[in-house]
Amino acid sequence: MHLDKFFNAQSTAIIGVSRDPNKVGHVILRNFLDGGYNGKIFVVNPNAESIEGYHSYKSVLDIQDEVELAIVAVPAGFVPKVLEECSKKKIKHIIIDSAGFKEVGNEVLEKRLEDVIKKHKLRIIGPNALGVFDAYSKIDSLFLPRYRMSRPNEGSISFVCQSGAIGSSVVDLATAQGYGFARFISYGNAVDVDESDLIEYLGNDSKTKVICLYIEGVKNGKKFLEVCSKVSKKKPIIAIKGGVTEAGAKATLSHTGALAGSADVYFGIFKQANIIRAETLEDMFEYAKILEKSIKPKGGRVQIITNGGGYGILATDSAAKDGVKLAEFSKDIAKELRKKLPSIINISNPLDIVGDATTERYSMCLDACMKDKNIDALLVIVLVQTPLIATDIVDLLVKTNNLKKKPMVVVSAGGEYTETMRAKLEENGIPTYTYPEDGIQALSQLTRYYRNK
Amino acid sequence: MHLDKFFNAQSTAIIGVSRDPNKVGHVILRNFLDGGYNGKIFVVNPNAESIEGYHSYKSVLDIQDEVELAIVAVPAGFVPKVLEECSKKKIKHIIIDSAGFKEVGNEVLEKRLEDVIKKHKLRIIGPNALGVFDAYSKIDSLFLPRYRMSRPNEGSISFVCQSGAIGSSVVDLATAQGYGFARFISYGNAVDVDESDLIEYLGNDSKTKVICLYIEGVKNGKKFLEVCSKVSKKKPIIAIKGGVTEAGAKATLSHTGALAGSADVYFGIFKQANIIRAETLEDMFEYAKILEKSIKPKGGRVQIITNGGGYGILATDSAAKDGVKLAEFSKDIAKELRKKLPSIINISNPLDIVGDATTERYSMCLDACMKDKNIDALLVIVLVQTPLIATDIVDLLVKTNNLKKKPMVVVSAGGEYTETMRAKLEENGIPTYTYPEDGIQALSQLTRYYRNK
Repeated sequence: MHLDKFFNAQSTAIIGVSRDPNKVGHVILRNFLDGGYNGKIFVVNPNAESIEGYHSYKSVLDIQDEVELAIVAVPAGFVPKVLEECSKKKIKHIIIDSAGFKEVGNEVLEKRLEDVIKKHKLRIIGPNALGVFDAYSKIDSLFLPRYRMSRPNEGSISFVCQSGAIGSSVVDLATAQGYGFARFISYGNAVDVDESDLIEYLGNDSKTKVICLYIEGVKNGKKFLEVCSKVSKKKPIIAIKGGVTEAGAKATLSHTGALAGSADVYFGIFKQANIIRAETLEDMFEYAKILEKSIKPKGGRVQIITNGGGYGILATDSAAKDGVKLAEFSKDIAKELRKKLPSIINISNPLDIVGDATTERYSMCLDACMKDKNIDALLVIVLVQTPLIATDIVDLLVKTNNLKKKPMVVVSAGGEYTETMRAKLEENGIPTYTYPEDGIQALSQLTRYYRNK
Repeated sequence: MHLDKFFNAQSTAIIGVSRDPNKVGHVILRNFLDGGYNGKIFVVNPNAESIEGYHSYKSVLDIQDEVELAIVAVPAGFVPKVLEECSKKKIKHIIIDSAGFKEVGNEVLEKRLEDVIKKHKLRIIGPNALGVFDAYSKIDSLFLPRYRMSRPNEGSISFVCQSGAIGSSVVDLATAQGYGFARFISYGNAVDVDESDLIEYLGNDSKTKVICLYIEGVKNGKKFLEVCSKVSKKKPIIAIKGGVTEAGAKATLSHTGALAGSADVYFGIFKQANIIRAETLEDMFEYAKILEKSIKPKGGRVQIITNGGGYGILATDSAAKDGVKLAEFSKDIAKELRKKLPSIINISNPLDIVGDATTERYSMCLDACMKDKNIDALLVIVLVQTPLIATDIVDLLVKTNNLKKKPMVVVSAGGEYTETMRAKLEENGIPTYTYPEDGIQALSQLTRYYRNK
C-alpha cells in the first residue's frame, strides 16, 4: 500500500518549525504533541538549537534514525531543495503544507517540484495543502490550532477534500456534531497524489467504512471512474460536486483551476460508479451516518412509526418526493396489532401511535415491524417532550436495533433532554436525525446504494 | 382585540389541578410558578384543600376576585359543565387542554361543547390542545414539564401549530438553537379559535415580527386567504403545509381530520397571500431568523464574499438554483478594490479573498460593497479556522451591519470557536447560517417577500 506511511508513519520529521508558536511549522509540532502521536518526532530548523524541548536538526540529513514521513512548512522557494534532501535521507512520503506555487501563478516553481518528484519517485501530498489528519495515529499536518479547529474522535468516516478551508471547517463542525473520523485529507495542488489515489487507498483501509468527497473537478476522469467503480463495491462513496451551475463552474476556475466541465458529465460518472451524490455538505454527513452503521436492507419498503402525527405526515410527504416506498403491513400482523392497540390508532403507514404512546406501545409496534416480511426498514419518530415516554425507550430501541435484521433510523427533535437520548442511541449504533425528511433521505440513499451495488 | 386575554391575562384559574405532580393540571400550575407568571393564580380542584401552597377552590364560582383566563384540564366529560361555570364567573377566555373529543371519535361531546360556547359567546382555544406559551407574560398551558421541553427566551417569532407534538418538539429544538419567541399556540381541535384568528391576532401584536405556521388543512379557506393577505402586508408569514403528496394527504385525514385538499390549491393561496412557503421545519426557522431582523433590500442582487473558495462556489451554485441574482461590481469600485487587494484575488462574484484573509481585508471589501450601488445584499462567508482571522472580525461585521443600508447574512461552519463567534453576531442582530445554501435561501426569501409585498 503505497500511501500507508502518510497515515501510519512511525517517525515523522517536521521541516520548518519556527520558534514562533503562531507559525505553520510550530503549530504542526504542537498538533503532534497535543494529539498524542506515539511515533518519533524530529524537528528541523537550521536556525534553532531546540524547540519545545526537541533538538532542532539543521537538515533531515543530520537525523541518525530512520524517518518515514516528512511534513514540509518552509517557504515555497526552499521546497525543491528540501525534497532533494528528503530523497537522500530515503524519506519517500512527504506532505507539503507550503503555499506559493501554481495557486498564486508560480507555475515555474510547481514544474520544478514535479521534476524532483519524478526523478526521485517521491509520493507527495500537496503543495498548498493542509495535508493529513489521522484520528488513529494522530498524524496531523493541519496548520490550524486545535482551539480554532477541534480534532475528531476515532471513527469510520474518511473525508477527502482538495480545499483546506472547506475541509477544515466541515470537519470542525462534524466533530462538534459528534461524528467520528478515520482520516481527513486536504490534498491541495495535487502535484502527485490526487483524489483517485486517496479514494483507492481508503477503499483498502480497514478503519474507513464510508468515504466522503468534496470535488470541484478531477484531473483524470477515466482514473476517477475506474477507481470509484472498484471502491464503491467495497464501501460507499458520497460526493459533492462544487460548480454544478454555470456560475458555480466559472467560480471553480478561479478557485482551484478545475475545469469543472459539465455537471451532467460528473453526475453520469457518479451514477456509473455508484457514487452517492449529496447536494449539500449537511446531507453528505447525514448520509454517512447511516452508511457507516447500517446493514444491507432486504428491500426498500419503509414503515414509519410516530407519536407525533405531523412528523409522520412530513415523513410521508418526503418519502413520496424521494421515491421511497412505504411498506404495507401483512394481514396477520395488522390483525395482531389491531387487537393490541387502542381503537383510535389506524394500523397503516405512517403508524401514528399518538401522543400518549408509552414505551410498551412502541415495543408492540417495533416487534410487529421486525417480524413483518413486508417491511424492510424502519423510521421511528420519538418525540420525548410528551410525559408518557420514559427513558426506557432508549433501551427498547437499542435492543430492537441489535437484532440487526432491518435498518432502523430514529427521528427526534428537541433540546437538551432529546439530545441526551439521541447521544445514547448514537453511541449504540442507531443513526438519529432531527427532521423526518433527513431520516427518509438517509434510508433512501442506503437502499439505493445497496440496490446499485 | 378579542384574543388578547389568552396572552396577557392578569389572573388565571387553572381548573383540574391534581395533587399528583405528574398530572396535566399540576404540570401547568408548576409552569406558571417556575416560569414566573406575575398575574394572579387560582387553583381549582374540588377534592383538595390546597396544592403547592395555593388554596384550592371547589369551583371557579367560589373565587372572589376577577379571573381573566381559565385553563381547563379536567376529564372530557366534565368540560361542558366547567364552561358553564366559567361563563357564570364571566371568564370569557378559556384554554381547554383536556382531550377525548372529536379526535377520539367523540363527536357528540364536541358538539355539546360547541353549543355551550355559542350560547355564552366564549372564546376557546382547544380542546385537545397544548394551548399557549407566552414568552412575555409567561402564561403557559403546555402540559409538558420544563425538563422535557425548554421554554424559549423572549423574542419576536410566533409559531402557530395545530399539533401539539410537532409544535412542542420544534419549539424545544429552536430554543436550544437560540431562537427567541413571542407566542406559541397549539390550537388542537379548534372548536372556536382557529389558525386564521390567531394569525390575525399576531398580525396586530407588536411583539411578533414574523409568524410561523405549520398546517395540514384549514377549515375556512376564504377566511384564511383574507386574513393572511392582510397580515402579510404588515409582517411576514412563513408556512409549512403537511400532506403535500397523495400519501401525505391521506395521512392527514387520520391525524387531524383535515381534508388536506390539493396541495396546489394551498400553494396557490400561499402565493396569492404572499405567504412564504417553507419545505421543511428547518427552513422555516432559518427564514424566520432573517425576516425578524432584516431591513428591506433595495433589490435582489447579492454579493458573496468568502475566505473559503469551496464555500463560495457552493453559494454560487445555490444562488443559480434558487434564481438569486449575483451582483456585479460597478467599474469604479472594482478598480478601487483591484488596487487594494493582492493580485491573485479575482474581483468578481463570489469574491474569494482566500485563506490568508485578515479582518483588514474583509473590511476593505465590506466597505466597497456597502458603497456599491450595484449590490443590494451581502452573503459574507467567514471560516474562522484559519489562523489569520482575528476575533475583531466580529466587531467589523457588527459595525457594518449597523449601517442598516443593506441586508447581510454571515455563513460560518465549525465547532465551539465558530459557535462563540456566531452567538455574538446573532446577539447583535446579524442572521448567521452554517451552510452557504441556507444563507442564500434566506436572502432569496427576504427579497421575494418584499418584492411581492
